[in-house]
Amino acid sequence: MEPNMSTTCVEIGMEVHKVVSPPHKSSFQKLKARLKETFFPDDPLRQFKGQPLKQKLVLGAQYVFPILQWGPNYTLKLLKSDIVSGLTIASLAIPQGISYAKLANLPPIVGLYSSFVPPLVYAVLGSSRDLAVGPVSIASLIMGSMLRQEVSPSKDPLLFLQLAFSSTFFAGLFQASLGILRLGFIIDFLSKATLIGFMAGAAIIVSLQQLKALLGITNFTKQMGLVPVLSSVFHHTNEWSWQTILMGFCFLVMLLVARHVWSWQTILMGFCFLVMLLVARHVGMRKPKLFWVSAGAPLASVILSTLLVFAFKAQHHGISVIGKLQEGLNPPSWNMLRFHGSHLGLVMKTGLITGIISLTEGIAVGRTFAALKNYQVDGNKEMIAIGMMNMVGSSTSCYVTTGAFSRSAVNHNAGAKTAVSNIIMAVTVMVTLLFLMPLFQYTPNVVLGAIIVTAVIGLIDVPAAYYIWKIDKFDFLVMLCAFFGVIFISVQEGLAIAVGLSIFKVLMQITRPKTVTLGNIPGTNIYRNLHQYKEASGVPGFLILSIEAPINFANTTYLNERILRWIEDYEAEEEEEEGNKQQSGLRFLILDLSAVSAIDTSGVSLFKDLRKILENKGLELVLVNPLGEVMEKLQRADEAHDLSRPDCLFLTVGEAVASLLSTVKGQSSSHV
Amino acid sequence: MEPNMSTTCVEIGMEVHKVVSPPHKSSFQKLKARLKETFFPDDPLRQFKGQPLKQKLVLGAQYVFPILQWGPNYTLKLLKSDIVSGLTIASLAIPQGISYAKLANLPPIVGLYSSFVPPLVYAVLGSSRDLAVGPVSIASLIMGSMLRQEVSPSKDPLLFLQLAFSSTFFAGLFQASLGILRLGFIIDFLSKATLIGFMAGAAIIVSLQQLKALLGITNFTKQMGLVPVLSSVFHHTNEWSWQTILMGFCFLVMLLVARHVWSWQTILMGFCFLVMLLVARHVGMRKPKLFWVSAGAPLASVILSTLLVFAFKAQHHGISVIGKLQEGLNPPSWNMLRFHGSHLGLVMKTGLITGIISLTEGIAVGRTFAALKNYQVDGNKEMIAIGMMNMVGSSTSCYVTTGAFSRSAVNHNAGAKTAVSNIIMAVTVMVTLLFLMPLFQYTPNVVLGAIIVTAVIGLIDVPAAYYIWKIDKFDFLVMLCAFFGVIFISVQEGLAIAVGLSIFKVLMQITRPKTVTLGNIPGTNIYRNLHQYKEASGVPGFLILSIEAPINFANTTYLNERILRWIEDYEAEEEEEEGNKQQSGLRFLILDLSAVSAIDTSGVSLFKDLRKILENKGLELVLVNPLGEVMEKLQRADEAHDLSRPDCLFLTVGEAVASLLSTVKGQSSSHV
Repeated sequence: MEPNMSTTCVEIGMEVHKVVSPPHKSSFQKLKARLKETFFPDDPLRQFKGQPLKQKLVLGAQYVFPILQWGPNYTLKLLKSDIVSGLTIASLAIPQGISYAKLANLPPIVGLYSSFVPPLVYAVLGSSRDLAVGPVSIASLIMGSMLRQEVSPSKDPLLFLQLAFSSTFFAGLFQASLGILRLGFIIDFLSKATLIGFMAGAAIIVSLQQLKALLGITNFTKQMGLVPVLSSVFHHTNEWSWQTILMGFCFLVMLLVARHVWSWQTILMGFCFLVMLLVARHVGMRKPKLFWVSAGAPLASVILSTLLVFAFKAQHHGISVIGKLQEGLNPPSWNMLRFHGSHLGLVMKTGLITGIISLTEGIAVGRTFAALKNYQVDGNKEMIAIGMMNMVGSSTSCYVTTGAFSRSAVNHNAGAKTAVSNIIMAVTVMVTLLFLMPLFQYTPNVVLGAIIVTAVIGLIDVPAAYYIWKIDKFDFLVMLCAFFGVIFISVQEGLAIAVGLSIFKVLMQITRPKTVTLGNIPGTNIYRNLHQYKEASGVPGFLILSIEAPINFANTTYLNERILRWIEDYEAEEEEEEGNKQQSGLRFLILDLSAVSAIDTSGVSLFKDLRKILENKGLELVLVNPLGEVMEKLQRADEAHDLSRPDCLFLTVGEAVASLLSTVKGQSSSHV
Repeated sequence: MEPNMSTTCVEIGMEVHKVVSPPHKSSFQKLKARLKETFFPDDPLRQFKGQPLKQKLVLGAQYVFPILQWGPNYTLKLLKSDIVSGLTIASLAIPQGISYAKLANLPPIVGLYSSFVPPLVYAVLGSSRDLAVGPVSIASLIMGSMLRQEVSPSKDPLLFLQLAFSSTFFAGLFQASLGILRLGFIIDFLSKATLIGFMAGAAIIVSLQQLKALLGITNFTKQMGLVPVLSSVFHHTNEWSWQTILMGFCFLVMLLVARHVWSWQTILMGFCFLVMLLVARHVGMRKPKLFWVSAGAPLASVILSTLLVFAFKAQHHGISVIGKLQEGLNPPSWNMLRFHGSHLGLVMKTGLITGIISLTEGIAVGRTFAALKNYQVDGNKEMIAIGMMNMVGSSTSCYVTTGAFSRSAVNHNAGAKTAVSNIIMAVTVMVTLLFLMPLFQYTPNVVLGAIIVTAVIGLIDVPAAYYIWKIDKFDFLVMLCAFFGVIFISVQEGLAIAVGLSIFKVLMQITRPKTVTLGNIPGTNIYRNLHQYKEASGVPGFLILSIEAPINFANTTYLNERILRWIEDYEAEEEEEEGNKQQSGLRFLILDLSAVSAIDTSGVSLFKDLRKILENKGLELVLVNPLGEVMEKLQRADEAHDLSRPDCLFLTVGEAVASLLSTVKGQSSSHV
């Protein structure tokens, strides 16, 4: 074979562009560049370059405390907007705070505490101008249900509260560590599809949990999950049976049958306020200018229902109320943090999961509104801000908080300009805590349930699910796994399955990379996928393949087999077409490496092995357009210069075909 | 922005090629194609297509039993070659079988049993012509050390034997399942780098274990790992201390000091035979024609040493011997398999790990020699063959076996033509079992140790390690992790760390994909990496970026930030160069998607978001050459036809630049 090859590979006179390696860099330089791209993709120190020391210090302080950046330029006009938006979100934050605390099985007042300190911390450290900080439904749900696995909030409320604060501390520690260690990309692994499925599942669980409040049931299941909740609602056994399912559908019938267990006053009241809140939400969504309707509705419901209960003394007629709340600001709680003992594992796990979920929500919300207003939010800095906020919060009787989507949207619509709106909100909550607590004594629980249901119903995003179905069926599957996993198994496992599946998909793309045959688009030098471009046509004697993934240990075996199968298919097809069994016309296998972004030692060996196998078959292997890293490694591996000879390495497929064709012609004419 | 854009984007008269979607396929068709590529990349049913039923049955039988394929054409000439090679590997298999069984803490005779039944099974089912089947050092080591964690082979030899057979059964079951479920690609995740590191580490552990035999120590550590072994050799505490390390280096000194503990006769004998075996191995490696020197050396040593012991009655002078071995063929052992009880977990774990390790070795050996002789080995079929062989073996007193590299190389060099050489070997072992067992009574253990050390020393592949260091530093790191993990932690954990690290690298490549700026190579339409091709130059007003990875949930955030940073850098550079602060000349961002092999919903959203952000900056986003799947998803997502308008979507960068330049020029001339 060899002598034939060497004549084939003589470099010819036509214009052919050489493939070159990128300029040499030492391993250390490469490592440095790689680490920089991994941990500092946003190049946060760029602005410090070339500045005098004093300026550097100022910039550094501004970097750590963004309030120093926008604070000096703060004007009265901005303050006006911020006061309006701050009061608006406060009117939302107070009823939601109380409701979400109940969702987490915590005393309602903890929800108000959590709407006071964290917003102040965020106003100093945070870089988003629209984020409205406070407790959120999903994180509250997760914390409540996870801690309830080991400790009963009704039997041992103090221990439960201690565990909640400790979890909050670990959540904050975890969030801040992610930011400081610049590992923020970890939350990217919760893909949009995962989150949509997860949110919808959680919303359904939360809504079902609220059946307790809405229907006035007293003995409710302690578990989270569709089956036990439904069972509990219908006073049935805890087993999953078709009867349970059927009964879910016979809701209305059962409502009448079971009336002696449920409180009809509560149902009536809950139903009325739920309808009112949903209508207000609908109005607010349809006409963004009327956002204040949906923003004000929860507070209006609370006030109205409280007045109703007070007027009719309804607390004596089967309607349960919040009861006496303690006046005064957040008491310190650092002495309640538990870093040892039997529940430490649970506390850390709860902190980790609520931390990552609330972080994901906060960062996504911040980025969404930053993109709308065309400013940048630094993900890692935000993580530190949110983490610090939770760590401070855990010492001041707050549980886990983040930037809530619904409240931030209201904040944005109400015209918030800076984080001062958070300060205004915190001050309003402070006034409430100091002076208005007795007013909540008669607030019925049913209204809080209605507020929660209204808030979480927005988390079920059917259009987004349909959009995912339309674009990517596998993403849809991931979404379904997250959804059903959360509903039927548990929050943690549902999330884990969805994330695992997403990563599995990425790995499968690597393990089974696409290889496509290219053909020439007539009248051009362009070579494209024969399957995609019907006008493209193959070049006789050439099999041109494009490999569309990095080549590494996970796919070299597959690629080897697949490429040989392409050759067999090509030869079989040719045989069929020509009828007569002449020697195969296939002379060259061209591998277009334009889409091979990286290679490892196994990948380099693949080319060497392939070359040997092809030589046995009388074929020549030609590589086209290896990218920087690939070219470099090929050269380093290639002491015999087998793969990087100029006649087997071309810059474009067009040049390779033209050059090789003319060589072949030259040979056959000299033979004649 | 919009009116300006629409004039910019008018389609112009020059020749521009349209980007098209691939022909429509239903989701089901796509799923089918994807599943086929994942599980049947080798298209094993291809040969059945269009054949008559009878032929199909014949082909099917040949597919299941490859012996039916080559059996009918077997000739006397082939038999001659196979007898020579079969006898050669038998002379290697008998001493190695005894030695490896001792390595696994099993009675020596089990090693001979394992060299009798499995080769016969493989001869019927296997498709490799060169594989020499039998026990191997690494799998023996792992099985012995894992089972010893719970059961002592000296105190409870029967239970230990039962667990060994049960593990073998699970190993076979696991191997066959991988093949039947066509999940063979799982072993691809043990990259070459991992294996080289792992093998070298295991070789060192095995060699150290053999110090017991070579030095004649009686009370040896039960643990595997460098530290306890070294400690045990020097009768020191089990703690890792600098003293231990130091003593490792003072080996020779200690040898003299401690002579009263060690048996000098054993040391002398072991040293002589070790030197003899290593010399023979060296000769065999240097001159492949003299392969019989290294192949015959172990048997020669066994015979010679046995004669020496017998002649000098050396067993009474501190040299330990194998002792009486039972005559006769493999007794059945299916009644010894334990599928329940307290050790089930350990047995399954041991089966899994020894199964995957021995499978990896067997498949790699089969592929290596198949490539040398230019025939194909079907990975999944081989897995079924090896799995069946171990399942049958576990019922006939055999422990885990596979195709050994060293013996297969000897087999190949000795001229083996078909699997008949395995049958010859099995027959030779059978004769040994039936008639020659008494001869081994005086074989000294020290010679077995020397045989093992000689065999495993070949597993330390320094040139391969250097090659990996040269090509890919990260692969080298993976190798080091496997090496030190095996030595200092444990076989399982060392492997797990190395595999985890390999997968982490692949994920990082996805999470932080490379983006490079392209420039025009003068005088052509070719655009290539500006950094790699120094002659390439940018086009004023254009920023051309190539993204070199699939775009998905794990990298959209990063890509968004990185692309915006490229734009900032471009503008900053321009400002610096021009000095005067005129409006930025950047008009177009061209994204070359040639290397983006796949996209998901997050990726589609990235383009939509990017388009909005760029519009705010007065820039236009142009996409070039989206591949089939990407194009399809863009179109499906793109109801407003924002991204797939013909004026924002081009087939090559060259056409995009030319077309957009002429539009801009048209505009500016009409302005004048």
